[in-house]
Amino acid sequence: MSQLVLTTLPNIPLVKNGDDIARIILNGLRDAEIELREGDVIVIASKIISKAEGRVARLSDVTPSARALELAQETDKDAREIELMLQESSEIVRARKGLIVTRHRLGFVSANAGIDHSNVQKGAEDFVLLLPLAPDVSAARIREEVNRETGKQVAVVIADSHGRPHRLGTIGIAIGSAGLPALEDWRGRHDLFGYELKYTDIGLADMLASAATLLFGQAREGTPIVHLRGATWFGKNGTARDLVRPKEMDLFP
Amino acid sequence: MSQLVLTTLPNIPLVKNGDDIARIILNGLRDAEIELREGDVIVIASKIISKAEGRVARLSDVTPSARALELAQETDKDAREIELMLQESSEIVRARKGLIVTRHRLGFVSANAGIDHSNVQKGAEDFVLLLPLAPDVSAARIREEVNRETGKQVAVVIADSHGRPHRLGTIGIAIGSAGLPALEDWRGRHDLFGYELKYTDIGLADMLASAATLLFGQAREGTPIVHLRGATWFGKNGTARDLVRPKEMDLFP
Repeated sequence: MSQLVLTTLPNIPLVKNGDDIARIILNGLRDAEIELREGDVIVIASKIISKAEGRVARLSDVTPSARALELAQETDKDAREIELMLQESSEIVRARKGLIVTRHRLGFVSANAGIDHSNVQKGAEDFVLLLPLAPDVSAARIREEVNRETGKQVAVVIADSHGRPHRLGTIGIAIGSAGLPALEDWRGRHDLFGYELKYTDIGLADMLASAATLLFGQAREGTPIVHLRGATWFGKNGTARDLVRPKEMDLFP
Repeated sequence: MSQLVLTTLPNIPLVKNGDDIARIILNGLRDAEIELREGDVIVIASKIISKAEGRVARLSDVTPSARALELAQETDKDAREIELMLQESSEIVRARKGLIVTRHRLGFVSANAGIDHSNVQKGAEDFVLLLPLAPDVSAARIREEVNRETGKQVAVVIADSHGRPHRLGTIGIAIGSAGLPALEDWRGRHDLFGYELKYTDIGLADMLASAATLLFGQAREGTPIVHLRGATWFGKNGTARDLVRPKEMDLFP
């Protein structure tokens, strides 16, 4: 019998600019009385990474460009928010009333370029949260600090909630990953009957992100860090960037 | 501290046409010494539902239509397999060398209409596995039998591995669901700071499917049933069909 056990870390403070997320994880593990083992995974909600890295923008400080004003007319959205979306994206994929879908500079296609109003401190309605600048780097940095402090090799995944083409409902996906093959390659492996596997690319870090997101609870952002034990994987470590399908390889309309 | 605990059920036999999946689950739970509680979720790999329901096709019995022969030329794929894809789908979404993407009769968009070669008994290269005819109905039927036998209200999710637009790597999604809101509606809920939530539709059953798929291991199809404890949800029960984004609502290209 294999088991996968996910535990929310307790006593996570409200994260502020400059906070040390690795230190917060280590304190949470201590309070949860979890002793890290090799191969454990720490999944972190992207929001607290954004906050720790000061990825907050004040709308009253933003001057919309001509392109942003034009898109604001087209979509009925705030021109300053659109300006931020343009700055965060490499391409506007779709725009219509109430909706902007972009290719984010991190590669993925999503609504509103990952810009989020919720979970910014009350009385701060003028502020929005942007995604971390380089979440793969953030994950690697946090992992190094946790490994150094504990002497155990763990993995770190930074999770964000995304909508999807063709399906309703947001799910957790990995926007940052370190210490595991985010995109796991099963080429050459065989099934129970000796057949070579047909689907050889596994979205490992995305599934870990979804599993942890079940515990985050978007409304209870008091539990943005999950410890996960029992996952196994094959192959070389990679990054969440590996999960982005290159535009020219897109198979779906 | 909240916990989510997933356990693979042991001693699952090779499933054959006509097998009683609810009975296999109950035996597995007994062998794992798990006593069901209200709100537990049983996640089942779609393959064993297909096998129990006899959803196997013999390629040598299939006569390809003119359309299938045409698509076989276009894609370099087996015309008999394409004929099965056509029978399983409401629409061909994309076809090119080596690739067919369809809208399955169950609503979702995926490669090869969910038709699978792997994990069909050795010496049976001529056989392929089709998705269950009505997985939401299968989930409800299995759930009823488990509830009746144990006196506990559980939920059942039938999971399948799917590729995705814009992202590499397959993840687990729900193609059947009973006993929980597969698409969870968080409208009216508020975040930590009192803001109303922006993303109100949560792909609950898909995330449960992904979490369990981490344990299935496509190569070790000896563990196609996972018991999951600790998930919570809000609102009315629904079906996996609720997770299919209606074509006219598709926001992404």
